[in-house]
Amino acid sequence: MDATPSNGIALVGFDADDTLWRSQDYFDDAQTQFERIVSAYVDLTDIGKQLYECESRNIAIFGYGVKGMVLSMVETAVAITDARITATDIHRIVQMGKDLLRHPVEVLPGVREAVAAIARDLPVVLITKGDLFHQEAKVRDSGLADLFGRIEIVSEKDPTTYARVLREFDIDATQFLMVGNSLRSDIAPVLELGGWGVHVPYHVTWAHEAEGKVDVGIERMRSITGIDQLAAAVAELKALAS
Amino acid sequence: MDATPSNGIALVGFDADDTLWRSQDYFDDAQTQFERIVSAYVDLTDIGKQLYECESRNIAIFGYGVKGMVLSMVETAVAITDARITATDIHRIVQMGKDLLRHPVEVLPGVREAVAAIARDLPVVLITKGDLFHQEAKVRDSGLADLFGRIEIVSEKDPTTYARVLREFDIDATQFLMVGNSLRSDIAPVLELGGWGVHVPYHVTWAHEAEGKVDVGIERMRSITGIDQLAAAVAELKALAS
Repeated sequence: MDATPSNGIALVGFDADDTLWRSQDYFDDAQTQFERIVSAYVDLTDIGKQLYECESRNIAIFGYGVKGMVLSMVETAVAITDARITATDIHRIVQMGKDLLRHPVEVLPGVREAVAAIARDLPVVLITKGDLFHQEAKVRDSGLADLFGRIEIVSEKDPTTYARVLREFDIDATQFLMVGNSLRSDIAPVLELGGWGVHVPYHVTWAHEAEGKVDVGIERMRSITGIDQLAAAVAELKALAS
Repeated sequence: MDATPSNGIALVGFDADDTLWRSQDYFDDAQTQFERIVSAYVDLTDIGKQLYECESRNIAIFGYGVKGMVLSMVETAVAITDARITATDIHRIVQMGKDLLRHPVEVLPGVREAVAAIARDLPVVLITKGDLFHQEAKVRDSGLADLFGRIEIVSEKDPTTYARVLREFDIDATQFLMVGNSLRSDIAPVLELGGWGVHVPYHVTWAHEAEGKVDVGIERMRSITGIDQLAAAVAELKALAS
């Protein structure tokens, strides 16, 4: 799995949510609104924790994304309030989800220039996790679709999925570099396959993604603090790879 | 768009829901349960119609699939009952959705043999619409994944999407034949691009899919009444195409 790279980097993948555009902020806002709605019924300090536990249990059924989050919110709200929550308040939770799905895409500062700079030199693809319909809508609204040769929306970002996608691209993992904000989803699985990674942390991370850590291949990864440092980091890894 | 085919058929695509395995029956059952829950609050005969109207409005936000259907059910239930529906009944609706997502896959009789027979002669791919996570789970549970060289899950089945997928496969539309139960989603868009189609009607059709009709290329389509007639229909179109 940890093969010596030999052919240089031939493809750069970009994560989308919280790498190219804002996402977690809106989820955090929705969770705050949810806690406010539910706290009218109960005197609890761990509403957010109970929601996260419900979401974690439901990921195997719902997958990632807003629709699953809203369904978990409804389930949690009914459970926490012993079914005392009104239909009007449940309706507010569903409407909050619809607002989230229709939220305009806010591309992060400097992203277009940074991706375009990499794309002048290497083919770039977008690899994003979550709800197919919502992710496609965001790609369209972002105005960035023209930069990417291909857009892959996957249900999970693990070594198996990256291996399948790279097979479809006909690219060896040792020739692939992934850019993203999540160690768990964007960096660790690619390093595990023998690939390369540039980690661009976002100012907030969902608890689920924050659980990740890098076990192997740390020498094939760089961390940067701003997207303006991307070109230099890619150049550095590209030199190491060839 | 309606180009004369010239190179013969080089790829066969299969739809999944209601072509390879049962699906609409479960949605119909869920709708019946939904109507039963809501009819305890109101004396209405058009609950199903109101749900369909809500689902149709929400497709632009939710896309296809169970999770969007459940959210539309909650929205419709709150509206129809003037918010009198209890949290317990809303919870039943959400649980019904979870049951639907966990329902075992029932492959239709004769399907494995029919797909395998085509696959001995031509590369076959699965092209299915809807929720990425749920569709992947169904492909896995169906035991049919090994027959397909590739699985494409798309958010909409229109000419634009088929054209993109065929570009990724490096196949001209005139070399592509699609097999499926929906004229709207599986047959009409492929014929429009100059491709070929075998229509296998299912015993029930969702109102949305029933709206489809074939405008062009009817001479490049065959309708069969059972999957056991697939090989003959494909052979006939293949002969025409070469």
